[in-house]
Amino acid sequence: MATIDLNCDLGEGFGAWPMGDDAALLDVVTSANVACGFHAGDPQIMLATCRLAAERGVAIGAHVAYPDLRGFGRRPVPTTSDELFADVVYQLGALRAAARAAGTRVSYVKPHGALYNVAVRDAAQADAVVAACAAVDPQLAVLALPGSELLRAASDHGLVPVPETYADRAFQPDGTLVPRAQAGSVLHDAGEIASRVVRLVTEGQVTAVDGTEIAVDARSVCVHGDTPGAAAIAARVRAELVAAGVGLRAFV
Amino acid sequence: MATIDLNCDLGEGFGAWPMGDDAALLDVVTSANVACGFHAGDPQIMLATCRLAAERGVAIGAHVAYPDLRGFGRRPVPTTSDELFADVVYQLGALRAAARAAGTRVSYVKPHGALYNVAVRDAAQADAVVAACAAVDPQLAVLALPGSELLRAASDHGLVPVPETYADRAFQPDGTLVPRAQAGSVLHDAGEIASRVVRLVTEGQVTAVDGTEIAVDARSVCVHGDTPGAAAIAARVRAELVAAGVGLRAFV
Amino acid sequence: MATIDLNCDLGEGFGAWPMGDDAALLDVVTSANVACGFHAGDPQIMLATCRLAAERGVAIGAHVAYPDLRGFGRRPVPTTSDELFADVVYQLGALRAAARAAGTRVSYVKPHGALYNVAVRDAAQADAVVAACAAVDPQLAVLALPGSELLRAASDHGLVPVPETYADRAFQPDGTLVPRAQAGSVLHDAGEIASRVVRLVTEGQVTAVDGTEIAVDARSVCVHGDTPGAAAIAARVRAELVAAGVGLRAFV
Amino acid sequence: MATIDLNCDLGEGFGAWPMGDDAALLDVVTSANVACGFHAGDPQIMLATCRLAAERGVAIGAHVAYPDLRGFGRRPVPTTSDELFADVVYQLGALRAAARAAGTRVSYVKPHGALYNVAVRDAAQADAVVAACAAVDPQLAVLALPGSELLRAASDHGLVPVPETYADRAFQPDGTLVPRAQAGSVLHDAGEIASRVVRLVTEGQVTAVDGTEIAVDARSVCVHGDTPGAAAIAARVRAELVAAGVGLRAFV
Repeated sequence: MATIDLNCDLGEGFGAWPMGDDAALLDVVTSANVACGFHAGDPQIMLATCRLAAERGVAIGAHVAYPDLRGFGRRPVPTTSDELFADVVYQLGALRAAARAAGTRVSYVKPHGALYNVAVRDAAQADAVVAACAAVDPQLAVLALPGSELLRAASDHGLVPVPETYADRAFQPDGTLVPRAQAGSVLHDAGEIASRVVRLVTEGQVTAVDGTEIAVDARSVCVHGDTPGAAAIAARVRAELVAAGVGLRAFV
Repeated sequence: MATIDLNCDLGEGFGAWPMGDDAALLDVVTSANVACGFHAGDPQIMLATCRLAAERGVAIGAHVAYPDLRGFGRRPVPTTSDELFADVVYQLGALRAAARAAGTRVSYVKPHGALYNVAVRDAAQADAVVAACAAVDPQLAVLALPGSELLRAASDHGLVPVPETYADRAFQPDGTLVPRAQAGSVLHDAGEIASRVVRLVTEGQVTAVDGTEIAVDARSVCVHGDTPGAAAIAARVRAELVAAGVGLRAFV
Repeated sequence: MATIDLNCDLGEGFGAWPMGDDAALLDVVTSANVACGFHAGDPQIMLATCRLAAERGVAIGAHVAYPDLRGFGRRPVPTTSDELFADVVYQLGALRAAARAAGTRVSYVKPHGALYNVAVRDAAQADAVVAACAAVDPQLAVLALPGSELLRAASDHGLVPVPETYADRAFQPDGTLVPRAQAGSVLHDAGEIASRVVRLVTEGQVTAVDGTEIAVDARSVCVHGDTPGAAAIAARVRAELVAAGVGLRAFV
Repeated sequence: MATIDLNCDLGEGFGAWPMGDDAALLDVVTSANVACGFHAGDPQIMLATCRLAAERGVAIGAHVAYPDLRGFGRRPVPTTSDELFADVVYQLGALRAAARAAGTRVSYVKPHGALYNVAVRDAAQADAVVAACAAVDPQLAVLALPGSELLRAASDHGLVPVPETYADRAFQPDGTLVPRAQAGSVLHDAGEIASRVVRLVTEGQVTAVDGTEIAVDARSVCVHGDTPGAAAIAARVRAELVAAGVGLRAFV
């Protein structure tokens, strides 16, 4: 039986401000990318999210970010390798303690927002992120796009590289995602999204925007948590995967 | 041979702003109370301080605080037990990861500033701090004044209570410190401070402000790091302890 | 014709996190208490809120707070008079510039959350807030509960004291609000709330929890912006006031 | 008689952390670039700096920055024009209120660190900064390098462009500063620095690194406040200017 992991960004409120429907999403996904306080999340939210994940047996990943609360981690704050190494150590450590206090553990790292986008392509930033992870816990997995510098760095540092893809993104013929700035880059129809994910998981294929059939290598599929209808789309994806006989299971 | 630990607050700069002469003090003390980012310290400073401590074999303690960077943790921010538990988990976790990345570990916790003052007397705040420590690492020691709620809570939660005293503070006949607001509460003469510490360590006694001889139970002596002449006073204390045949050794 | 002002807390999002339905509420109220970045709000939100208020002719007040973004200004951070003076100058100045850039101005100050609760009763904190306001703009009004230290301080410093009351709060026989911790302190029925406000404005009276009729002196009525159904309740209050022939007009 | 303005960055401490010798420098300079809380400074420091400047008749400029306390404003945080406009409005407003509470006013704006470096060359960022200034106070001057986008934007928005130069920087034959990364870019000898400034002010000329004599157009000379010996160098510059018969006077 084919199995797949579903991952989602969670714990992205801050103080009095909630974001997304974490409880609903934690009933759907198998891995939770938990914000660590730099782009979202605060110590109480981190702890509460770890407890909810632990109750449901959902795996926990550190959703590390550039220090940019007001910008939600979407701004690529220029950060040296030394700064980034230290910032990742700090965030990862804080979440590890929250997970431990909740009776569980952090099993992977997935950078957030601008840090993800930069470290996918920038070898030095990817190495800083991954070296920090390896210095804190050499058992960690790193979740990122196939072919990214993040997965290359994971291999180089002895961590487990885990390729992921996105449930609601359109693909170019070369297998990369259609940039967000382009029309049609994000799919919105729950049924279409779910069907694509099922085919992707069971056949390893997806149809690119020009009609080309392309192979996609992914051990995890990211579903969004903060878009309109996010929880419903995620639930639909899960339901159709289950209906197709796919096992839902964290990759770690 | 009598032995004693000397502890000091370190790593209390922030960003471009230094504080104290950490390198000099780390050559003197045996335990470093390292700021965790809530009252001072940032990820790079935490990592650098852990590395310096590791090089010198100085033990590392988490100097956890209320969230108050601008007030340097000196303001007792009203904090519920749940908030405080989560805040201590967060800070302790961040420092544990920094220590680990530096090849060492956090062996104790000592609250900073207003949190220390509150948790010495307030059972609920002390319990929140110590419960958080126990949830993250049941091997931790807790460093605080003898007779404090913090040490009581440490015992209750199965952590190691370690009584400390202050090198440069005057005592009342009942064994408590003369409040800072009173004249003569803080000693400034390096020779006098050093002599008192030697007697305190070798005889277990100190002279109170009214001339009474009192017994002081301490396994660690705190020397200040950010007052004028701090490093020189600390060095004098260490030198006279060594001259008196006292071994300097971390309590953990 | 009787006239009244309706005031509401607005601009209380932060970065990516929204709060409340500001656009809807700005169609209802005549005065907007705009967050200044210490408990909520950021420079862009402040500017956008001032622009929306200016378009609708809604008066702008500085909703100054203790520095506590994570606690939404609900924690009474211990603050000296000098600190508080400087913090109010800073927040008021930032909002004045936003208002000016939006083609309008700040005409009053209303402290937020814990600062409001403290300064209503604490003469020194009230004096610090009001002295800061007077130092920046001697034309300002101060909006607070009747009989409060804030209004006393406003008179003492030559600012305009403006008594306000709350649309959805129950009263004790002595004219003070039923504390929030008590059952029945907050009303939830839109119709009941609206009727009470109409009577309060047109007759100057309201029925206390024990049935006593009491006089309430208020030139402004605060409606909430962030509770469930807040915008609908506020709209109902406005509609019934208009139906009763009451003019809606900012007090400044 | 020739006159010149000396400007310096001041008020760059934060909370418990001081920076530079503000009191000494305020006895030397005629214009103070006061930090506004985004890279340094807090409400109390801003107010205290404005009061010190007011006592000495030193002009006050808003030293606006990208939001980057930990990086001291040295990191070019990617910021849209709308964000930057709002951030400058906020900082400028906060300082205007502090100045007003100190009995003085903000008469000019000089961006700090990374924002200065970016806005000197980037037309859109320069326009955002200057448009924000113009929206808050159309009487403001803008202090920046000759030929910069900041001065161009000042002219375009009807503000007063004021060219400045640096007391301790070496020049290239084309009149621009030798980049900091190059050897010899910064002069350290107080006597040499002072002589160059005197010649620059009285003759309008300075010798470039290749020996070329170049014309420098400057109505203000920036002296550093946070380098070793800064106050002494600044005092020497002032003393030699006075000895040469040059009047020291703020440009506004």
